[in-house]
Amino acid sequence: MRIRFSKMHGLGNDFMVIDGVTQDITLTREQVRAWGDRHFGVGFDQLLLVQPPESPDVAFRYRIYNADGDEVEQCGNGARCFAAFVRRQGLTANSVIPVQTSGGRLELTVLADGQVRVNMGVPRLALDEVPFRASAPGQAGRQTVALAGGRTVTLTPVSMGNPHGVLLVDEPPSDELLADLGPQLEQHEAFPARANIGFLQVLDASSGRLRVYERGVGETLACGSGACAALVAARLHGVMGATVTLHLNGGDIGLSWAGAGEPVYMTGPATFVYDGEINQEA
Amino acid sequence: MRIRFSKMHGLGNDFMVIDGVTQDITLTREQVRAWGDRHFGVGFDQLLLVQPPESPDVAFRYRIYNADGDEVEQCGNGARCFAAFVRRQGLTANSVIPVQTSGGRLELTVLADGQVRVNMGVPRLALDEVPFRASAPGQAGRQTVALAGGRTVTLTPVSMGNPHGVLLVDEPPSDELLADLGPQLEQHEAFPARANIGFLQVLDASSGRLRVYERGVGETLACGSGACAALVAARLHGVMGATVTLHLNGGDIGLSWAGAGEPVYMTGPATFVYDGEINQEA
Repeated sequence: MRIRFSKMHGLGNDFMVIDGVTQDITLTREQVRAWGDRHFGVGFDQLLLVQPPESPDVAFRYRIYNADGDEVEQCGNGARCFAAFVRRQGLTANSVIPVQTSGGRLELTVLADGQVRVNMGVPRLALDEVPFRASAPGQAGRQTVALAGGRTVTLTPVSMGNPHGVLLVDEPPSDELLADLGPQLEQHEAFPARANIGFLQVLDASSGRLRVYERGVGETLACGSGACAALVAARLHGVMGATVTLHLNGGDIGLSWAGAGEPVYMTGPATFVYDGEINQEA
Repeated sequence: MRIRFSKMHGLGNDFMVIDGVTQDITLTREQVRAWGDRHFGVGFDQLLLVQPPESPDVAFRYRIYNADGDEVEQCGNGARCFAAFVRRQGLTANSVIPVQTSGGRLELTVLADGQVRVNMGVPRLALDEVPFRASAPGQAGRQTVALAGGRTVTLTPVSMGNPHGVLLVDEPPSDELLADLGPQLEQHEAFPARANIGFLQVLDASSGRLRVYERGVGETLACGSGACAALVAARLHGVMGATVTLHLNGGDIGLSWAGAGEPVYMTGPATFVYDGEINQEA
């Protein structure tokens, strides 16, 4: 069977996107792995499969698979690509698109300039919800973490559904800094579920430079939830306003957070690279 | 402008292949680099551009570009993909296809089973043609090379248009062996133009296991000229016959060499992955 797909990326986080509404698609783990290989297949960070809704309160369902074939929860970059894809395919003409994901219901907004806004959820700061183990019982917010050799660093634990630790740094975060602190902190005993480690240089109240060492992956081009966690940490310490632009390796992302109890909104691009057709064994 | 292309691979060495016969294609270095990026573009080891012939003694011309935009000489895996592509596109119905490349004229043969045979040229063994600098004036063939720490290794210098050093090993070549000897020998002073370093375990007179540490690149899935050099070295030492199968990381390749003064023929697969359409800025 011949299958149509599109290759897209959100700030360099790249996706094979398949319309499973007008095409009858069944994917095996082996198929995802074969297509995910960057030399023998299509190559992608994740595969997005768009499907008809299972309930009337959403317009679509989408599934997202890692290149190793595992189905994973939603991802901000993938959500933006999903929304741009269903509009371009003519599957919807609406600019507000409610969708069911394995991580729950999402509402995506396609803006006039083609960028997509994603509700990334309400951040949780309680230490046991991150989870983060303080060396002494403590309040949410800035924490001191001991490293080997007697060094300490200060970071802010934040959950965006997944655990983050955010460090505010004075200089542009360097390769050396990421290589030194990223692996140590990502698997530090203070983070029992491990963590994504963000290094944020605040440039002014509305902009900053962010690099993120992702849990189990290493540094990536653009970590959406890491960008949200960075804004939350910066706002808690009073060094950024409610609406900011963060410069990531893969490009710029817009974020806004009204404060405690409110969701973080992320706004960014979704880019089409090419359209493809590939054979799937029957 | 909308451009049609195919994504192909030869034993995992992957190519974006563009028909520049029926499409009017002009490529800039920036365009090749943008398409070559595996996250922001199509992603490939090399781009193949098929063009009309410039002289009547060939059927086509093809150009080959690395992902950094440099135009490079021909490559055995790319030659196989070129031949399978022009047949599938209906640009020729012949099974013997003469083609002009920047490395000279090539003649490719498409076999009944879809595999493609490539004349890889006549190996040169004279040490100054490889080039190889012996520590004492010597004959072509097996050479001893001194490493740091007083160790020595024995290898056979071979030119297939590019320089190779082939080591015959008794065990399946290990990651540790490649990591230890690959970088040291690739830039050893005995190879003034550097070299591709092959590690060949002869299994019997007609088969072997080969891993190649490529000059300037590191280990790859399949190095066609390295496979040719390995057969030449093994035949010089009387441990293989004229027609063999070598197991590379990316799959199996067939080779034959009648002996001194004769070309090496390589036979292997060319695999279509998908067909694509991409926009090129006017």
